Amino acid sequence: MHMATMEDIAKKLGISKGTVSKALSGAADISGATRKLVLETAVELGYERVARQDGNVRMCIFVENMAYEREDSFGWELIMGFRKMAEPAGASVMVEQLTQEVQAEYHYDEYMLLHGYRGGFFLGLSLSDPWTEDFKTCITPAVLYDNRAGDNPVVARVGVDNVEAMELAVTFLKARGHTRIGYLSSALGSFVYQERYDAFFDALEHNGLEHSPALAGAELCVSECVKRHLPRLLEEGCTAVMCSHDLLARALLLYCQGQGISVPGRLGVIGFDDIPLCRHMQPPLTTVRQDRLELGRSAYYALSSQINHVRISALLLHARLVPRESV
Amino acid sequence: MHMATMEDIAKKLGISKGTVSKALSGAADISGATRKLVLETAVELGYERVARQDGNVRMCIFVENMAYEREDSFGWELIMGFRKMAEPAGASVMVEQLTQEVQAEYHYDEYMLLHGYRGGFFLGLSLSDPWTEDFKTCITPAVLYDNRAGDNPVVARVGVDNVEAMELAVTFLKARGHTRIGYLSSALGSFVYQERYDAFFDALEHNGLEHSPALAGAELCVSECVKRHLPRLLEEGCTAVMCSHDLLARALLLYCQGQGISVPGRLGVIGFDDIPLCRHMQPPLTTVRQDRLELGRSAYYALSSQINHVRISALLLHARLVPRESV
Repeated sequence: MHMATMEDIAKKLGISKGTVSKALSGAADISGATRKLVLETAVELGYERVARQDGNVRMCIFVENMAYEREDSFGWELIMGFRKMAEPAGASVMVEQLTQEVQAEYHYDEYMLLHGYRGGFFLGLSLSDPWTEDFKTCITPAVLYDNRAGDNPVVARVGVDNVEAMELAVTFLKARGHTRIGYLSSALGSFVYQERYDAFFDALEHNGLEHSPALAGAELCVSECVKRHLPRLLEEGCTAVMCSHDLLARALLLYCQGQGISVPGRLGVIGFDDIPLCRHMQPPLTTVRQDRLELGRSAYYALSSQINHVRISALLLHARLVPRESV
Repeated sequence: MHMATMEDIAKKLGISKGTVSKALSGAADISGATRKLVLETAVELGYERVARQDGNVRMCIFVENMAYEREDSFGWELIMGFRKMAEPAGASVMVEQLTQEVQAEYHYDEYMLLHGYRGGFFLGLSLSDPWTEDFKTCITPAVLYDNRAGDNPVVARVGVDNVEAMELAVTFLKARGHTRIGYLSSALGSFVYQERYDAFFDALEHNGLEHSPALAGAELCVSECVKRHLPRLLEEGCTAVMCSHDLLARALLLYCQGQGISVPGRLGVIGFDDIPLCRHMQPPLTTVRQDRLELGRSAYYALSSQINHVRISALLLHARLVPRESV
């Protein structure tokens, strides 16, 4: 295949190679409209930046809807894990807050080309983000944490193995005598909550337990979810509830405190994620641990593999149950 | 944690350190019973070999039930891909045929310790193998191709993303007007055939198609499977059949030839694997491709990650549909 050059772009647009070069390097004395046109054409022609002379590969971690600045924020270790693998390997890693403005101005491929990024790692992406649509057809590698975007070969996902996680949780509850187990979830619109939901009900089925959809409740707002569905699950005879994530389990524990429902006496509760807060909840929360440092390292591997044309679809880590006092 | 030494083993067994050393190095002048006892004790105490001075990590690819000696055998590229990653990284890779005898004589951990292997990659393992039970609790990393063994953190699997594969196949058939699609499978006892089966019916459901278990048939023997179930699927009104693997699709094509059932006119057929034979079938078989070179490379990554304590559960590659003439 002929690799498109700056000349090709200049020729196609009827402008000088100097203008193309300036536009691609992000120079300030080029109008936004021209830059956009050059980027669009470059992507369309399959233009690729020549690797930098120092061999440095530039990657970017895009963060949205997730705290990452402090050591106890959810994203901190994900980013640390990624950097710890990337930097010794000679890659340079930027971290950017992903905004609606950037996504409205540039398609994903255009933005990456403009900044010389060879691939992106996405934390906390939302399904309503414009780039979610781009991921179905983009040509620049992307790795999504706990998210999936069609079957584009250059897009991979990393996360914990939700199927294994739900098997662990259900087996654990069953071994402690629970045979009717409910499920509370954040809204099922997102990939990860849908996958956990499916995996939970499959695990009930594999374990020979009642697995009717009547045992589940899902709402966007966690306290709303608990208030609306927990009384029903108790009426259904549930003696334990699995939660889609720890913050929902926390809302559940607070509600139970308020209503005088004893945990774990009357109701066993398991969360998911193992956020630092879990050990300070009342009672301390039994949960499924995601090792975020390892997830970050795995994301680097998945992204560098993609950059080297190994078409990883999913890289999943083992889940681990952390027993505390809520079961 | 105190690392167990040869002295610890010798002390526990009341034998000399020299005997322990000989047993662990596989010396010939030690009885089988003594060697076995030393290995058992070494595994129990958590004895680890000190890394070799040349920094070489020894890994072993165990093969069973799979041809690999010729370039067109199924296992050839899996092994090539593994070696291509491993050898530049300074690992040395052995390939061994896995026998029942070896498994009867040694537990997995014992065998690996005896041979100084830090991890194993398994091709074609059977669920009835004694080591399958060992994988639930072993401490030596293992990577299984298209297989799964409980939730042991040191065991990972590599394979193609079966969920994505079945979505591709069903979407492809639906776009060509097929709304009643049957499924023929090898016996569902194995992990990979069960996963493909589940993924196929989930894909029918996601695509709003009839997904009754009546549309499936599964048998150990491929020609038996076709003979017993195809007439029923045709009666059910199926216009296409998805097969769990290419050799079953081949049996299906042969049967249709014999019965004068036109493919793709009367019946569309899709296989799975893309074995070299597919392009020579009558008609050439539309199938889901597994990139075996990349699977081999991914297996090396998963195993070396495990050896470095990164607890990968699954490393899945993108599936790709290869359209030929059977749909």
